[in-house]
Amino acid sequence: MHRSIATVSMSGTLRQKIEAIAAAGFDGIELFEPDFVHFSGSALALQRMASDHGLRIDLYQPFRDLEGMPTAHFRRSLARAEHKFALMKELGCPTLLVCSNTSPLSTGEPERAAAQLYEIAERAARYDIRIGYEALAWGRHVRRYRDAWKRVALANHSHLGLILDSFHTLSLQDDPTDIATLPGDKIFFLQMADAPQLQMDVLQWARHYRNFPGQGQLDCEYFFEQVLKSGYEGPLSLEIFNDQFRETPNRRTATDAMRSLLWLESRVRSRLETSGDHDRLWRQTATQAWLFKPPAVPVLNGVAFVEFAVDTAHAATLGTLLASLGFHLAGQHRSKDVQLYAQGDIRLVVNAEPDSFASQRFERQGGPGMCAIGLGTPLPDQAAARASALLSAAADTPRRPDELHIPAIVSPGGMRIHFVPTGAGTPGFEAADFDVATPSSGAATLSRSPRPGPLLKSLDHIALALPPDQLDSWVLFSRAVLGLEPGDSQELADPYGLVQSSSVCNDTRSVRMVMNVSSSRRTGVAHAVNASGGSGGLHHLAFACDDIFAAVAQLRASGTQFVPISPNYYEDLLARSDLDPALVGKMHSLGILFDQTPLGAFFHIYTPRFADRFFFEVVQRVGGYDGYGALNGAARLASEAQAADAASRDAVAR
Amino acid sequence: MHRSIATVSMSGTLRQKIEAIAAAGFDGIELFEPDFVHFSGSALALQRMASDHGLRIDLYQPFRDLEGMPTAHFRRSLARAEHKFALMKELGCPTLLVCSNTSPLSTGEPERAAAQLYEIAERAARYDIRIGYEALAWGRHVRRYRDAWKRVALANHSHLGLILDSFHTLSLQDDPTDIATLPGDKIFFLQMADAPQLQMDVLQWARHYRNFPGQGQLDCEYFFEQVLKSGYEGPLSLEIFNDQFRETPNRRTATDAMRSLLWLESRVRSRLETSGDHDRLWRQTATQAWLFKPPAVPVLNGVAFVEFAVDTAHAATLGTLLASLGFHLAGQHRSKDVQLYAQGDIRLVVNAEPDSFASQRFERQGGPGMCAIGLGTPLPDQAAARASALLSAAADTPRRPDELHIPAIVSPGGMRIHFVPTGAGTPGFEAADFDVATPSSGAATLSRSPRPGPLLKSLDHIALALPPDQLDSWVLFSRAVLGLEPGDSQELADPYGLVQSSSVCNDTRSVRMVMNVSSSRRTGVAHAVNASGGSGGLHHLAFACDDIFAAVAQLRASGTQFVPISPNYYEDLLARSDLDPALVGKMHSLGILFDQTPLGAFFHIYTPRFADRFFFEVVQRVGGYDGYGALNGAARLASEAQAADAASRDAVAR
Repeated sequence: MHRSIATVSMSGTLRQKIEAIAAAGFDGIELFEPDFVHFSGSALALQRMASDHGLRIDLYQPFRDLEGMPTAHFRRSLARAEHKFALMKELGCPTLLVCSNTSPLSTGEPERAAAQLYEIAERAARYDIRIGYEALAWGRHVRRYRDAWKRVALANHSHLGLILDSFHTLSLQDDPTDIATLPGDKIFFLQMADAPQLQMDVLQWARHYRNFPGQGQLDCEYFFEQVLKSGYEGPLSLEIFNDQFRETPNRRTATDAMRSLLWLESRVRSRLETSGDHDRLWRQTATQAWLFKPPAVPVLNGVAFVEFAVDTAHAATLGTLLASLGFHLAGQHRSKDVQLYAQGDIRLVVNAEPDSFASQRFERQGGPGMCAIGLGTPLPDQAAARASALLSAAADTPRRPDELHIPAIVSPGGMRIHFVPTGAGTPGFEAADFDVATPSSGAATLSRSPRPGPLLKSLDHIALALPPDQLDSWVLFSRAVLGLEPGDSQELADPYGLVQSSSVCNDTRSVRMVMNVSSSRRTGVAHAVNASGGSGGLHHLAFACDDIFAAVAQLRASGTQFVPISPNYYEDLLARSDLDPALVGKMHSLGILFDQTPLGAFFHIYTPRFADRFFFEVVQRVGGYDGYGALNGAARLASEAQAADAASRDAVAR
Repeated sequence: MHRSIATVSMSGTLRQKIEAIAAAGFDGIELFEPDFVHFSGSALALQRMASDHGLRIDLYQPFRDLEGMPTAHFRRSLARAEHKFALMKELGCPTLLVCSNTSPLSTGEPERAAAQLYEIAERAARYDIRIGYEALAWGRHVRRYRDAWKRVALANHSHLGLILDSFHTLSLQDDPTDIATLPGDKIFFLQMADAPQLQMDVLQWARHYRNFPGQGQLDCEYFFEQVLKSGYEGPLSLEIFNDQFRETPNRRTATDAMRSLLWLESRVRSRLETSGDHDRLWRQTATQAWLFKPPAVPVLNGVAFVEFAVDTAHAATLGTLLASLGFHLAGQHRSKDVQLYAQGDIRLVVNAEPDSFASQRFERQGGPGMCAIGLGTPLPDQAAARASALLSAAADTPRRPDELHIPAIVSPGGMRIHFVPTGAGTPGFEAADFDVATPSSGAATLSRSPRPGPLLKSLDHIALALPPDQLDSWVLFSRAVLGLEPGDSQELADPYGLVQSSSVCNDTRSVRMVMNVSSSRRTGVAHAVNASGGSGGLHHLAFACDDIFAAVAQLRASGTQFVPISPNYYEDLLARSDLDPALVGKMHSLGILFDQTPLGAFFHIYTPRFADRFFFEVVQRVGGYDGYGALNGAARLASEAQAADAASRDAVAR
């Protein structure tokens, strides 16, 4: 494919945009007119700059309010177009985007629009320029591709064709199926955009909330598939109006953009291969052969470990906290100042090695935090190869010969994701790297201070605190690189602002991640983001157990602290639920929170924050509950805020 | 009036909210249920806390999904209500808000709803509690007050009445006129909320974007007037769901809230007095007599001066810049290190006095900035008295006997607004405070370095850069305290994020202010906010002239720098406008920007930023143009970004 992106999709000066777009491997750009109007250089200078970066200027856009106008207005538009044609020749740009008219002066008769489109195409042809006509979702008369096509077909000019944009079709819940029946060579350009499902005016939605395919909730794959089925062989481009992208450093945006296209191509290639259409299209056209095909989506068997970056002092205090939560010291790294803690299937690595990635991360964060996640997979190298194909940097570190080869990649925000071999016959990472007694046996025998049996069985989910401009990056990374899919999403009230909590998980639910963002600078999430040095980091880890009442009773007995929950919470729970009052009484006495859906129930409890940063959660899922009790986060946050307020009053009083 | 506010309207713990609400002078609160559910103390403890702060708990809210339900569901709701009634008795709260049902299980027959409302009212009556039934704008069957009233009237129970909320009526563009015909004693509670006009799903709009009356675009005054005409004597309350308020320090929010109510009351009092209804209502009811009446809105005669806080070094460099812009040193303060610069009607005060308000401001900002604005008015003391009545702090400083008394108040963000006497027989502030030759004569004779005539005639507008959570505060302050009204509002693209530019002005347009906010942390506005120490400050000052071509030519000749504008801007202007190419050529050669509306045209040009902070603009208005050329800000910002980018590349290359 020839891959392109509109300059409006990212932040910076036009030169900075071009550099970022080229660095991400694009072939061309759509030049958004204001970017050129404010560009200090000439058209020729811009053409050279793009060319020097290996980029073509594929499209000049947008040209507004042309068709269906009274003759005098149309004549003025033609004069305006002549200016732009001359400019486009200097830019070496072959196609002008004309979007459907929004002017109240325009009329809806297809014949008038077609005649005027014919005339501008005729003028454009003199410059060897093509006109691409696009149905805007908020056009006055033309909002759907069928209506745009009707006018293009009526005009029937070699230099007039259609421009398609997934957002304009999917935002109106229009059916893209008929696109497959259009003549592919009359589609001059293809713009892809995704978006979250929002109930708002489509113009506002379009101008502020579009995002890259895979980051939103529109069915971009089906749309793209229909375009390919038409025989389309032109560029695959992205045109994204997004408030967040306008302020995100543009190298990240450009990487996300390319990752999005590669992922979209790979998904649609699979669809076409499955349906048998791929071979037919391959024979017909050249383009489809280039649909990107990365190594397969990894099978994930759960979180193999979570690694904390600490210094020596925090290694001790974190160890004490973990011990109070029922973890035992299960191993000491053969060559490094790294400890392994275990309980049930949970493995936590506490890394205080100087001059390591962990120590760099500790420095950057100015304190302890999560620095790496290990994901279990039968084919680690294939998982890493897929990540690399989808533009994730590799992060393999030099290892001693006796250390296990565990490939690693860099996540958005700079953490490491390790792919840890799992399956029969593969040594566990702890056996290979850690000094443990009997590596192949269970956790209890690994332990130096054995306990009767694990209270906590497995890692339920990893919750991240992210800066707002990283959420879309993480969603796309999770989907494209890791094969996780979006799940439950909630908005909850921190006493100092709103928090958006989104989740992704794999199909077996053995890997679940929650991503919290807050535009407020005063929330707990904002606090955690600050504590991560602004790059995002651990919000909390949730451990699953089979009997939370027994587990919490035992943990409390052994001195573990939990965030206190107001008695009013339980009185309200009694009032609003059909729960047995005795059960609510038990929850009250232990401080356990509750959530339910038609599928099942969720019991959970939070620890206070460790070192004023991340915390732990103990959870029990009942039935098919698939959420994260996110709304109860408000109870935790209010409790913490009240404790902090009381403490500061005490300090003042003293 | 008994004035109340819902606890959901502000940030913080419940205790902090109560303290802020009490400090702002409220009489009561609406207790938002989640605030109580998460409150660590008991109902009795909360009742005492409120009472200790002189607050009543006027309303418990919300109670959802009650009426029109199948019997089994309704029975469960009744049981839930019993829990809440018992709780409300402990809280000393007399009224429960029941909002119209949103459940798909509910049915629309008024009879069933009325019967169920009757039954809950009957239960409530046993606790001496009243049920207030409110039509939610997104209720399943009941969305308008008429439909809610129909059910209340049908039920006909002494303990059942209506709750009205301006947002729910005005967001649906429903007509509030008939409220005046309802029996006032069956309206149990009144909630006021304003909102910006947004094209979005009403639920999202309601949950995130409401604001205080005077901050939005709904006709709250007419709504409130109708409620008063009904004979309503209950509380006047605010229930505001606003993402920004959730994170704004709550003392500020509470002050804005009270200012909003006082202003609303004063506006509606004027309406009633004018219409003659006031006396009738006064005779009928006790409440209306308490409608707040502040001193009259000040007549403003323009910006008398703008004051800069500088140190000695910046006093010199700013003086040089002002001289290059055609200003002359017109006076030296009698007792302080303060200079007065003048040109036409413009007076700029440059304050480098140590241990002064200006020096504090300079310290806080870590650099030069605007610290005060002087507004000309015939009755300064009355203007100050109004400000004080509307909760603006006075900021009068000790003065020597020979200094002029100029009352001052504190603006949002901590600048000072002085009210400067104007009119026949009043000495100008410069005559009183500054050492000038012939104080009563014109600027030219005041000058120590006289020029042939002023290039710049008057101050066109003051543009502020504000943190996003201060915009609503400034809008309300401008309207309520200064009597300015909102005008043109634009969104423009900085290369590093979007900027919202809103304006206020007086009716004669002699005082115009522009307020710029940006949620991005990388824009020029964010930069200016940071440079103000986070409190907001000067973005730029715009000076008006009669012939911008002559003025800019002369200023350029005398060495004044302006932000360079791309040649592409003028080529595009030629293409899209009907302007005479010769005129565009002249603009191009001088670097002047252009905007127009059907009312008139606007020519303007920007200087680079002074000390990397604020800048100046020269403007010429033609005809009835009433905007600020805000969209051309994008040309300035792109030019600055390209210059900065080029400079950093040069630095790297060197």
